[in-house]
Amino acid sequence: MGYVQEIGRKAKEASKKVQFFGQSEKNEGLEAVARELRQQMGYLLVENDKDVKNARAAGMKPALIDRLLLTSQRIQAMSEGLEQIAMLEDPVGQMERVKIRPNGLQIGQRRVPLGVVGIIYESRPNVTADAFGLCFKTGNSVILRGGSDAIHSNKAIVKVIRDGLAKEKLPADAVLLLEDTDRAAVTEMMRMKEYIDVLIPRGGAGLIASVVENSTVPVIETGTGNCHIFVDESADLKMAVDIIENAKTQRPGVCNACESIVVHSSIADKAVPLIYERLHQKQVEIRGDERAVAIEAGIVPADEEDWGTEYLDAILSLKTVDTIEEAIEHINRYNTGHSEAIITKDYDNALKFQNEIDAAAVYVNASTRFTDGHEFGFGAEIGISTQKLHARGPMGLEALTTVKYIISGNGQTRP
Amino acid sequence: MGYVQEIGRKAKEASKKVQFFGQSEKNEGLEAVARELRQQMGYLLVENDKDVKNARAAGMKPALIDRLLLTSQRIQAMSEGLEQIAMLEDPVGQMERVKIRPNGLQIGQRRVPLGVVGIIYESRPNVTADAFGLCFKTGNSVILRGGSDAIHSNKAIVKVIRDGLAKEKLPADAVLLLEDTDRAAVTEMMRMKEYIDVLIPRGGAGLIASVVENSTVPVIETGTGNCHIFVDESADLKMAVDIIENAKTQRPGVCNACESIVVHSSIADKAVPLIYERLHQKQVEIRGDERAVAIEAGIVPADEEDWGTEYLDAILSLKTVDTIEEAIEHINRYNTGHSEAIITKDYDNALKFQNEIDAAAVYVNASTRFTDGHEFGFGAEIGISTQKLHARGPMGLEALTTVKYIISGNGQTRP
Repeated sequence: MGYVQEIGRKAKEASKKVQFFGQSEKNEGLEAVARELRQQMGYLLVENDKDVKNARAAGMKPALIDRLLLTSQRIQAMSEGLEQIAMLEDPVGQMERVKIRPNGLQIGQRRVPLGVVGIIYESRPNVTADAFGLCFKTGNSVILRGGSDAIHSNKAIVKVIRDGLAKEKLPADAVLLLEDTDRAAVTEMMRMKEYIDVLIPRGGAGLIASVVENSTVPVIETGTGNCHIFVDESADLKMAVDIIENAKTQRPGVCNACESIVVHSSIADKAVPLIYERLHQKQVEIRGDERAVAIEAGIVPADEEDWGTEYLDAILSLKTVDTIEEAIEHINRYNTGHSEAIITKDYDNALKFQNEIDAAAVYVNASTRFTDGHEFGFGAEIGISTQKLHARGPMGLEALTTVKYIISGNGQTRP
Repeated sequence: MGYVQEIGRKAKEASKKVQFFGQSEKNEGLEAVARELRQQMGYLLVENDKDVKNARAAGMKPALIDRLLLTSQRIQAMSEGLEQIAMLEDPVGQMERVKIRPNGLQIGQRRVPLGVVGIIYESRPNVTADAFGLCFKTGNSVILRGGSDAIHSNKAIVKVIRDGLAKEKLPADAVLLLEDTDRAAVTEMMRMKEYIDVLIPRGGAGLIASVVENSTVPVIETGTGNCHIFVDESADLKMAVDIIENAKTQRPGVCNACESIVVHSSIADKAVPLIYERLHQKQVEIRGDERAVAIEAGIVPADEEDWGTEYLDAILSLKTVDTIEEAIEHINRYNTGHSEAIITKDYDNALKFQNEIDAAAVYVNASTRFTDGHEFGFGAEIGISTQKLHARGPMGLEALTTVKYIISGNGQTRP
């Protein structure tokens, strides 16, 4: 049995134990790992430093190096993250939709773990501890495959998690790292249907497309967000500009940040200069259509490619439209099924937008930045699903579970 | 644009209308199609006869020809099936988990159609009308790809459905048949992620494996059922034999039929002859392990392959075990995640079996034949999911929907 298969087999074996752990065992495990991360902080910093030095030598951009960097504060935050997960309610074991059928059969759906979760991600080492915590809390084992940039950090974090579990006599194979970061190894992982129950890719559009293309394991697509804000003709312009500023600049590199503004032409003369002025103060470049450029000379002409681009940067596109129908058509054509907002005072248009936009989260008069497991009150988040099956939008603990029907009878046969 | 792409594009266009239809439009459409099926019964019988003649000429087995055959009674049943779907409650538009967050945002999940559903199935023409009905009721358009054996029947049924929709001025492209039954066409269909939101294969294990292997569209696996009944040492043997007879012989060719019996060795001397006698009366062949053959000479020796076989026929396997743990291990190794049952009077063993068996439906003291959307009280069924994501077990109307978050604010920005 090859290395990747062996990882799969071990994870499956561990999941057969982890699935039956009660809340107290799982929470004690999480707390033990949280302690271990703090105790082995020196080791984690030394190992992370190897990745950071390699990245600098390879000429990686400062923003990406910052994503890779661990500090004592960040390790402390990782550790606290696990303690917070321990405090959440465990969905496993909950019974739903219990009923008694006319023939006396009692039928209900019980929440159970998925089994083995595979996470394929890029260079943020904090995902390593976080993904373990959410999977362990829900009775799953997890196979992690991080990027080669973060390999020393990920090896170290997984070693420390396993040490913490072992101290509590819990199965260390509840978390396994695919240390071979070659493409062939990850492709093999994507096809291990016998060992892995679901794959969650977390990262850029290229990574996600590659997983969807190659995987035979069911995939939950996450993350890419070409999110729009439509400023309707009845919008409160002060509210519109405040929300646009927040959605674009509060954290530009994340998937729920606004990437494109759509403005009703009947208010464009007033709205476009206000939007431009506020975003210009924040060093945001606007790429607009002809009408937008005609109104405000500081706007750069957009081309077709801009409408479909998730910049994840201090840039956004601006499109003018003559009707709400045109706005909806444009957004449904270019969006990625993540988060879309309308700013309006018109009741019919608010309902129409929420009805007709096809996305995981559709807002009226609020920032797209709220699409987040914590902001939605789930207490945790394993990713934001942009697909329609199983989970859509922010995924909390429940998305890491499935159900099974539990049927209790006293001799029923089918007539 | 090629033929298959064109089918996808048309279905997507139609889904943009069908998704907004209210309950009355959808139900009137279903009733119009039901009438049209009765009115064009002569045409349907003539076209079906072409398939039946071709099948006979090709030497198809009588049981399979029977699955292919339409009669006026069967067309009447198809028509009534659509009228029954019209009477079911429509899940679309229901709001779930609505809450107001501390910042005043109102957040809820609204049930919405998936969009375009693709169904890939084998030679039962009744699936054609049934799949249309369930998809239309939930605001989806559907692309059907049936087997080449049933091509004349499927073309005729789809034509009649489209006639019925057109009479109500509803979009005929809500149902489309992929008339090209070549492998290349179906492979192209499986990769049309831009047009198809979910693929549901219905048929044998080979068909389902091929769809999982080749599809980039998300798949819901259905159907294969290597279902076991474990006769525990405390079982009421009369109940055990009644349930086994029912689960094996009431309809042997379906996925929730019992394919294997597991018997506790401490009661094997009494249980095996009783099971043998009852099944022998019903012309069922039993393939057993050494201990079973030693107890009852009429049992044929089983080989390793038997434990993993879904016979769909008047055959089942019989395995003896020394403990409930061994029974659970055996079942979890060979089952297909469908339906599993224990016959027991022991409280602890009942709970243990329901906890530890990994399957969509786990029974105590009842026949596996109840795993069915109608028997579970859903009123309809698009298939039985044997996977863990999105839906598990019998899938009713809700499995053909997804959710979107509807968020209503009054200017909230993220701090």
